Amino acid sequence: MGLETLFSPSRVAVVGATEREGSVGRAVMTNMLDSFEGETVPVNPNAASVLGRETYPDVASVPGEVDLAVVVVPGRIAVEVVREAAEAGVGSVVVITAGFGETGSEGARRERELREVATEYDLDLVGPNSLGVVSTPAGLNATFGPENALPGNISFMSQSGAFITAVLDWANDRGIGFKDVVSLGNKAVLDERDFVEAWGADDDTDVVLGYLEGIDDGPAFIETAREVVRETPIVLVKSGRTEAGASAAASHTGTIAGSEAAYEAGLEQAGVIRAENVEELFDAASILASQPLPETDAVAVVTNAGGPGVMATDAIGDSSLSLASFTDETLSRFERALPEEANIYNPVDVIGDAPVERFAEAVDIALSDPNVGAVCVVTCPTAVLSFDDLAAAVVERQREAGLPVATCFMGGERTESARAILDEAGIPTYFDPARAIGSLETLSAYRAASEREYAEPTTFDVDRERAREVLAAGAERGDTRLGVEAMDLLSAYGIATPAGEVVSSPDAALDAAEAIDGDVVMKVVSPDILHKSDIGGVEVGVADGDVHDTYEDLVARARNYQPDATILGVQVQELLDLDAGVETIVGVNRDPQFGPLVLFGLGGIFVEVLEDTTVRVAPVSEPEATGMLDDVRAAPLLRGARGRTPVDEGSVVSTIQRLSQLVTDFPAILELDVNPLVAMPDGATAVDIRLTIDPDEL
Amino acid sequence: MGLETLFSPSRVAVVGATEREGSVGRAVMTNMLDSFEGETVPVNPNAASVLGRETYPDVASVPGEVDLAVVVVPGRIAVEVVREAAEAGVGSVVVITAGFGETGSEGARRERELREVATEYDLDLVGPNSLGVVSTPAGLNATFGPENALPGNISFMSQSGAFITAVLDWANDRGIGFKDVVSLGNKAVLDERDFVEAWGADDDTDVVLGYLEGIDDGPAFIETAREVVRETPIVLVKSGRTEAGASAAASHTGTIAGSEAAYEAGLEQAGVIRAENVEELFDAASILASQPLPETDAVAVVTNAGGPGVMATDAIGDSSLSLASFTDETLSRFERALPEEANIYNPVDVIGDAPVERFAEAVDIALSDPNVGAVCVVTCPTAVLSFDDLAAAVVERQREAGLPVATCFMGGERTESARAILDEAGIPTYFDPARAIGSLETLSAYRAASEREYAEPTTFDVDRERAREVLAAGAERGDTRLGVEAMDLLSAYGIATPAGEVVSSPDAALDAAEAIDGDVVMKVVSPDILHKSDIGGVEVGVADGDVHDTYEDLVARARNYQPDATILGVQVQELLDLDAGVETIVGVNRDPQFGPLVLFGLGGIFVEVLEDTTVRVAPVSEPEATGMLDDVRAAPLLRGARGRTPVDEGSVVSTIQRLSQLVTDFPAILELDVNPLVAMPDGATAVDIRLTIDPDEL
Repeated sequence: MGLETLFSPSRVAVVGATEREGSVGRAVMTNMLDSFEGETVPVNPNAASVLGRETYPDVASVPGEVDLAVVVVPGRIAVEVVREAAEAGVGSVVVITAGFGETGSEGARRERELREVATEYDLDLVGPNSLGVVSTPAGLNATFGPENALPGNISFMSQSGAFITAVLDWANDRGIGFKDVVSLGNKAVLDERDFVEAWGADDDTDVVLGYLEGIDDGPAFIETAREVVRETPIVLVKSGRTEAGASAAASHTGTIAGSEAAYEAGLEQAGVIRAENVEELFDAASILASQPLPETDAVAVVTNAGGPGVMATDAIGDSSLSLASFTDETLSRFERALPEEANIYNPVDVIGDAPVERFAEAVDIALSDPNVGAVCVVTCPTAVLSFDDLAAAVVERQREAGLPVATCFMGGERTESARAILDEAGIPTYFDPARAIGSLETLSAYRAASEREYAEPTTFDVDRERAREVLAAGAERGDTRLGVEAMDLLSAYGIATPAGEVVSSPDAALDAAEAIDGDVVMKVVSPDILHKSDIGGVEVGVADGDVHDTYEDLVARARNYQPDATILGVQVQELLDLDAGVETIVGVNRDPQFGPLVLFGLGGIFVEVLEDTTVRVAPVSEPEATGMLDDVRAAPLLRGARGRTPVDEGSVVSTIQRLSQLVTDFPAILELDVNPLVAMPDGATAVDIRLTIDPDEL
Repeated sequence: MGLETLFSPSRVAVVGATEREGSVGRAVMTNMLDSFEGETVPVNPNAASVLGRETYPDVASVPGEVDLAVVVVPGRIAVEVVREAAEAGVGSVVVITAGFGETGSEGARRERELREVATEYDLDLVGPNSLGVVSTPAGLNATFGPENALPGNISFMSQSGAFITAVLDWANDRGIGFKDVVSLGNKAVLDERDFVEAWGADDDTDVVLGYLEGIDDGPAFIETAREVVRETPIVLVKSGRTEAGASAAASHTGTIAGSEAAYEAGLEQAGVIRAENVEELFDAASILASQPLPETDAVAVVTNAGGPGVMATDAIGDSSLSLASFTDETLSRFERALPEEANIYNPVDVIGDAPVERFAEAVDIALSDPNVGAVCVVTCPTAVLSFDDLAAAVVERQREAGLPVATCFMGGERTESARAILDEAGIPTYFDPARAIGSLETLSAYRAASEREYAEPTTFDVDRERAREVLAAGAERGDTRLGVEAMDLLSAYGIATPAGEVVSSPDAALDAAEAIDGDVVMKVVSPDILHKSDIGGVEVGVADGDVHDTYEDLVARARNYQPDATILGVQVQELLDLDAGVETIVGVNRDPQFGPLVLFGLGGIFVEVLEDTTVRVAPVSEPEATGMLDDVRAAPLLRGARGRTPVDEGSVVSTIQRLSQLVTDFPAILELDVNPLVAMPDGATAVDIRLTIDPDEL
């Protein structure tokens, strides 16, 4: 893994170390001296020794090479201290000192300086405003928190230092251990992407956990996470999910989080498992850290109590898992092993009078069925059953079978020692069947994410130069909002549009109309008139004989509506049979963290009233674009519902990808809507376009 | 409360008591002798004494009055034993003996006999196949389970006995106490409704909890629960929610659960709080049993840690609660009480260096704001904060303010004693902010349910006789499926239909058409042809001059399609301008537990593709019918979305109620669909009807 000097230093300088009671400097020194296996050197120009250790005035004076400097000096000298440490050759710095970007413009300036120093000296810098860093293999506890972590195979990063202290206290109580723990602080230099990358390459980290309030560079994070997820699961709580939460997060950290839609899409595209709350985060971590992945999503439930078996089955029904169907051989084995009153179908009920042997044999039979991906053991206290013996039997059988197992040992004190046996063996156990099933669902979700094939986004052969001309023409006119006059953008990117053109005289309109079979649609073209239909600026089904007069009428109405409107002309367009198709919408906007987001939905009420839309971070690959069609609730309408002919989904998928390519190619396009994109059985045609551009980006 | 001899007996006979090790009879005797404050009398004709108590051959021989008989004899003699006990004058019987309805036809016969005896002697009978009954005030533990309950104010019923043993073990561990606990068993006599009623009248029960796999009589349960909920919250897990779960429950209990849609609607209409899993069940019970109800849904969050404050805010965003807006006075008070870096807006951040005094004062200020309905205190471990002192301060301030408070004391061992202080005071405390907020949401949900005004269903003045004639006419023809020929059912119940009639000759068709303004719609009427449009059996927009020929054509097409079809004639109907309205659907079917269910949705794709429907148990009151319009996602389309004129919602609401009255009046109507019911700005018109009848019910 990277970040060696941060996580595996031999010599650590604590800059600002002091003996003053209640100080952060003393807390860090104490924590380091308590557990660090390397050398801890206090640095403080005003002390000869700190806690019995010889103290140096600066990092440069420390004999031997210092790998890591932990900085706890006051804010006003922190940047200078970091520079000195860098000059003395340290590889990593943890800046615990606060009073940077989180406090206003002076702090923000200081944070920029810190970043400059880090860049100049290629420092791996954590913080500022960090609780510190823990790495258990070396006993490194460079935090000022009250707890150290137990050793384990989970690495955890958090944008909230307070949450780390809470989690460590809680995890220590439960025997949950960590490889590394990082308090990200203000993320002036190292951010979530760096740690995901380092932990992905770290053989000792089996699960990456994070509490994040924002991701700095969405696309870079997606790229890194995708690679890491092949081998190592990433589970994140992204807080500020809701409007209220996002505004609380903004006032707390001073950063503006991107839209929830962008995070939702981006994290899903990255293969990250997203936990909604703390309980989900650690339930996911526990099972991912200890159980193998299932080969199928089908679960067998084995229970000695009907009701709890039904609860577990409900939980499976609520999840993306399924109830396994046993093979005939399994059913015969159950028949032989269980009494007549038992239920041999899934959920298997071994009946309340089952001794451990019967229960364990049923678990064994379930684990041997080739249709079973995972087993959930659900048990209630009975007079004949020793929970401890059952726990030991489940542990043994899980190990032999190598399939994941989760358990509900339902009870309190009576189940305590059994739960300890299961915990020790890494088999999750909960009172509530829903949580046990939830943890198995996490395993399946991760298996799917780790196996996902990421297609490279298709690069279509497009006329980029022509697209640039269209945008430049708008920019030259001083327009930031473009409409049908920019339809050529679409043709340039290989997207079908109705035959037609924008003309600027009645005669030209007639020529255009005569070149088109049948009646035409005519629309006034003006950057100043956004809702053309509302002012009578659109005429549908104009016969050639009426084209001349219609041209005059449309322009007159536009002038009437807004005398000083810029009128670019009138668009004369082929009249499509909209009834033969399904109106869809493809839109793009830009998220501050994730860049262009592509939206898809069905037109009209589906987007406006039902909010039935789906979003992806661009660039959108073919499987991702296909997934967008699957996502919308109205998808059956594209697929022949109610006796319609199915539309050509491939053309819609291709249009989504081409638009993704267009907005990726041109950062000047801030927003874009193709509405409607009419999906028909033989293709998809973009009938109208609206976009907003930033001419400075051209 | 009712059920006095069951829950507060003075003398209890254990029929089938024995000293045999491992027997149920011994377990019940032991449990009774361990805790019961009244007299426990063993009954067994084959023993002179059991566990040192004089034993009688039958209940009649027991000196003095026996209030309750607990029956643990073998199945084949259980009915006889119950009869003897009834004859001896017992008021209540708990039948622990199994081998009844759950085991097959012989057991089912025995269960019927048991029910007959209970009816004959007016016995309050629990079971059979029950774990038993606990009532803590009298120390009654008439179960064979390994645990007794602690005293408390929660009463709990469960259709799973095993779940009771698990819950008691778990609850004892956490100090959660119960008033009564009932294992419902097969519910041969007493069922969930009886216990809800008794506990509703019981001053010692503050919360009713239940685990149910089915409700026997939905409408009766709704009626009882509605009354109880005004004073006492009811929280239920109804398992078998999902398709997989329902089928598991059916194989487990042998009963067919009704549809999940019926339970969802029925429990909501009853004001019952529904928990999805065990964790939710007890989180809800804990806060309802101990905290006052909030007066508004607005919550204040007070925290010493930004990140966890954001998590709590996200949880509020996910819930039906809102983040309280503080008054100006509150903001000034926060400003005076908190340091400059603190956040005085909600979520209030007192900053990590807050000592208990500052934290507690902030809680106090939040509790005094008139806009605040409840407070959530969220804290992480810090060096300067004593969790215990903070817990004590929160307890004191909650008591003074009388507002509900939930807390997150985030941590493990460090928070243990503080959690004990909060537990003791009945203030919920969780690690996860989402669970603390979830428990506050339960309080708000219950407040809303307890205050809900239940309107009596409107009884419209209808022509019931005419409706009966229409149904009888169909029945006489031997039809079980009726169509437009039954449109008069609707008119009889005051539902507008287009002008028109069913005629049986071309001349009559012309007369009918001439009586209608404008063109007409003509449809062939045949009980044998369900999809008339598909065979060309519908013509829309027929001018008077074409009516004669169209009649002949329609009949010919029907004959051609099915030569032996019964053709009742042709319907000649006014042609409505469907474009001016919104097509909706009102449907009815019957649920085995809940009776008629009324469904509402928008027509076409909304029901068929988007499954955007809502359901109520009939009879549907006006507020409930209005709620159905609010429920559907497409509701804005009724309310003027996309520039339409809003429809007359009152007419739709009235139609729903009238159809509810119709199907309640006529159990012979098994299913009914009015599709479309065209909702227009000036009313709603039922254009087509289809129904299935059971002639035997007429």
